[in-house]
Amino acid sequence: MSTLFERHQKTLDDAVSAIRSRAYFSAYPEIPSGKIYGETARKDGQAAFQGALNNAFAIDQPASGAVGAEQSPYGFDLGITYPKPDLDTLLPAAEAAMGAWKHTDAETRVGVCLEILHRLNKRSFEMGFAVMHTTGQGFMMAFQAGGPHAQDRGLEALAYAWEELQRCPRTATWEKRVGKEETVVLNKTFRVVPRGVGVVIGCSTFPTWNSYPGLFASLVTGNAVVVKPHPGAILPLAITVRIAREVLTEEGFDPNLVVLAADAHDDPITKTLVTRPEVRIIDYTGGSPFGEWIEANATQAVVYTEKAGVNSIVIDGLDDMRAVSGNLGFSLSLYSGQMCTTSQNVFIPRDGVDVGGEHKSFDDVASAIIKAVDWLLGDAKRGAEILGAIQSERTLARIDQTAAEGGTVLRPSGPVENEMFPDARVRSPLIMKVDAADEKLFMREMFGPIVYFIATDDTKQSLELATRAAREHGAITCALYSTDASVIAAAEEATADAGVPLSCNLTGSIWVNQSAAFSDFHVSGANPSGNATLCDPAFVVGRFRIVQSRIPVSQAAPVG
Amino acid sequence: MSTLFERHQKTLDDAVSAIRSRAYFSAYPEIPSGKIYGETARKDGQAAFQGALNNAFAIDQPASGAVGAEQSPYGFDLGITYPKPDLDTLLPAAEAAMGAWKHTDAETRVGVCLEILHRLNKRSFEMGFAVMHTTGQGFMMAFQAGGPHAQDRGLEALAYAWEELQRCPRTATWEKRVGKEETVVLNKTFRVVPRGVGVVIGCSTFPTWNSYPGLFASLVTGNAVVVKPHPGAILPLAITVRIAREVLTEEGFDPNLVVLAADAHDDPITKTLVTRPEVRIIDYTGGSPFGEWIEANATQAVVYTEKAGVNSIVIDGLDDMRAVSGNLGFSLSLYSGQMCTTSQNVFIPRDGVDVGGEHKSFDDVASAIIKAVDWLLGDAKRGAEILGAIQSERTLARIDQTAAEGGTVLRPSGPVENEMFPDARVRSPLIMKVDAADEKLFMREMFGPIVYFIATDDTKQSLELATRAAREHGAITCALYSTDASVIAAAEEATADAGVPLSCNLTGSIWVNQSAAFSDFHVSGANPSGNATLCDPAFVVGRFRIVQSRIPVSQAAPVG
Repeated sequence: MSTLFERHQKTLDDAVSAIRSRAYFSAYPEIPSGKIYGETARKDGQAAFQGALNNAFAIDQPASGAVGAEQSPYGFDLGITYPKPDLDTLLPAAEAAMGAWKHTDAETRVGVCLEILHRLNKRSFEMGFAVMHTTGQGFMMAFQAGGPHAQDRGLEALAYAWEELQRCPRTATWEKRVGKEETVVLNKTFRVVPRGVGVVIGCSTFPTWNSYPGLFASLVTGNAVVVKPHPGAILPLAITVRIAREVLTEEGFDPNLVVLAADAHDDPITKTLVTRPEVRIIDYTGGSPFGEWIEANATQAVVYTEKAGVNSIVIDGLDDMRAVSGNLGFSLSLYSGQMCTTSQNVFIPRDGVDVGGEHKSFDDVASAIIKAVDWLLGDAKRGAEILGAIQSERTLARIDQTAAEGGTVLRPSGPVENEMFPDARVRSPLIMKVDAADEKLFMREMFGPIVYFIATDDTKQSLELATRAAREHGAITCALYSTDASVIAAAEEATADAGVPLSCNLTGSIWVNQSAAFSDFHVSGANPSGNATLCDPAFVVGRFRIVQSRIPVSQAAPVG
Repeated sequence: MSTLFERHQKTLDDAVSAIRSRAYFSAYPEIPSGKIYGETARKDGQAAFQGALNNAFAIDQPASGAVGAEQSPYGFDLGITYPKPDLDTLLPAAEAAMGAWKHTDAETRVGVCLEILHRLNKRSFEMGFAVMHTTGQGFMMAFQAGGPHAQDRGLEALAYAWEELQRCPRTATWEKRVGKEETVVLNKTFRVVPRGVGVVIGCSTFPTWNSYPGLFASLVTGNAVVVKPHPGAILPLAITVRIAREVLTEEGFDPNLVVLAADAHDDPITKTLVTRPEVRIIDYTGGSPFGEWIEANATQAVVYTEKAGVNSIVIDGLDDMRAVSGNLGFSLSLYSGQMCTTSQNVFIPRDGVDVGGEHKSFDDVASAIIKAVDWLLGDAKRGAEILGAIQSERTLARIDQTAAEGGTVLRPSGPVENEMFPDARVRSPLIMKVDAADEKLFMREMFGPIVYFIATDDTKQSLELATRAAREHGAITCALYSTDASVIAAAEEATADAGVPLSCNLTGSIWVNQSAAFSDFHVSGANPSGNATLCDPAFVVGRFRIVQSRIPVSQAAPVG
């Protein structure tokens, strides 16, 4: 029995209870407060981040040179270099590292993984700055989504893995009467056998939140993991890998169980990496075309993908315009629409809707939401924090193209000043009005702060378009505002059939783009937005197999 | 709550206990006795089989013409025709049938599936004759493997599915304090959404045993199932489909939830069928090349395969030659080596082994096993029952080719008389002696009654070759005979790493080619012999997804 397992067992037990009940739970505090994290935590975290800038990031792993050219979306080069991987030495090293790890017991592996999460949690401020200056998220969001929320998602994967590893007993006695005088008695032993080397491919916008589930699910089930960050967001995963290696080394395991495979935009390694025969598990987060390429080509591996989609909001009717527009204004502005859960298409009947007993036109509803966006961004400090910065130049270019492609500009996108970072790449949301007939405009993923308000015949058409978008292009979220129980029930059925989770009538401090670990299944796996869910049993069970042995009980060695 | 569920709940509960403990369990009696199945059961079953011969097998499903040209390996044409499927009507019909089925509760679906198994059990004699005269199995084996053992494997899949369908609660309340005065309370609903139409591809040797797990796992999780039998073994699955449709109809569901898609050797439909966009789940049993084709090409579906492999026996040392040779003689003769679990390669050190304290040469060991084979087949009736008949002409041709390819014939294969069926296609096992260096001969799958006795340097080399065969060509079983605890321990590790289950020192009434439902994992999924296991959680969880909806608790309709 491992000491680390005992030390963190309550965290694990609480997490297991949570995934069974799917009630609210969080193991890692989301408030970036000195009272929780220590009075100097923020300062220490900032100092650690600043100390990393313009330096080589040391990881003692097989490497051949250096790589790295991250730029903060807030307007400066990070100047950090990382070990450049040589796959011909890195992959065999990772494979060899599995020897002792796969033979140790599940308690020991879970204990090590829980300790890694614990140390990551202590470093949440440092991680916050690292995530902020690679993804462009505002600090508060970077702290939460990059730190405790990502850690919670990692813990959730550990909880599922722990449950799955208990499903089959380690030994059994099998006794069958086979004749009047003969009984066969066998001792059976069931061994967990890891699948092989896992690769986790991070994205540029949520490098830790989307990577931790795969990383921990593969590691805890006995596999080695190669962490392949997006070239624009290496630092958060490099910190993660270094902490994982520290804990593994301290516990007497080979640190090459977790290695970094950083690459450069102009010299990508992912296609080569994911088709290597040693690689047996792949977790991918990113754009749909490359995700589909991996699904079709990395046939030697089990592939879990979270890709992209076209998320919708259907407005059928509501009680309180201000509560709804405030919620949507924030939701559409947050991190400039760069969340995979952000809504792109807002369907509103062209003849308007009922709002608290009063008829409101399409334009009334549209104006109310736009007014909420304008109010939120009107305060410079609040606006900068909500919007963050645009991660990539391609997203920036997309905004301007979109306005020119058709439809009516209801709210132009424009630069927004960030007082702390004057060179930050900031744009406010572009809101276009289009007609339900303009499918070529809105029936496609337009990543970034781009929103279509779409005039439909009625809610039936709105739902038909929202679910068809999910079926054909994928969708990770769908929101509905309705006061009609039959409309809600119909939407629940229709979205379930389209494999997209539905959020009804959210107001106040809960938004459609939020997905809570231990309770919300993130990505259903039932439409083209991805084939896997964070987290469910299916996310874990493919990462290991059980191989048995059996021997007559009279001849069996004592069970060890 | 469904009446059928209540009626069969004890069977389900017992099965769930068994998969948790992996102790011995069987729900359906394996003894073909009138006391259990009714005094007229055998006669009735035979009459039903004979009544089916030279007739059209009626299934009221969308069809366009007739197909079917089965021949009994015992030497006569069955003369049965089946509805010829038109996929353009059959697949939409199956898809449409899912409507009410997927929305009903899990209890109802499980109840229906348990009733189907119950009725199949009552028809075990009829099934025994149908399996015997399509696969060539002897009657006793056909009854057991085609009837109760297959039903047990189906029940095992139901038990896993039932457990998985309970894993996530149907509703939850999520309550999060988000500020000093604000708490968000959401009602969440979690819906099981089936993946789509499943296809189950049967094989010619175990049409029901290998098909029932996929059939029941897909059906019970809300999917429709298209059953595609091997053109040489349609009848057992046609009987199964007709019974399933009867129960579905009686319970008010659309019978097209289970449809038959029979085809002909010279007009195969499988490639077209498995790549249709409606098909989202595939269960395949059969040869490796076609299984690999499906894995690589049916990328729109979740694919579960059981293919083939090269199974080994490693002889290191033993106590009682007679007990071991008797066990191996039966094991190697049973159903003429046409089980996917039959051993092909028997590794024996060229310098011999220790047998009960006495040194025995390679030839001594080889002779003892051959003598056991000869003794078993020496009695005509017993021999006919053990050997059964050769399912396919290709297997027959392979035997003669093998003898000519190299190595020394230790025991020639020859025709064996079957008194009841003089035209039966019967051959006794061919046993060849080759050297460990002759890899081109034994490092390949040679399906049928073909056995290589391989002279090795020592047990270390034997194990190396056995596990390399598993890694490179797949393996479903491995047997070891050793009296040395350290050899056993090393073999357990090595075979686990190669993904092949190990059977140690089996003697008496338990054979390496036996795989018991509820306890033995059949195929590990960890080497090229297949990617799935009968049965484990992974076999079930990919057949459905969970899609959630959430709504503030103040606005939620009462949970229904």
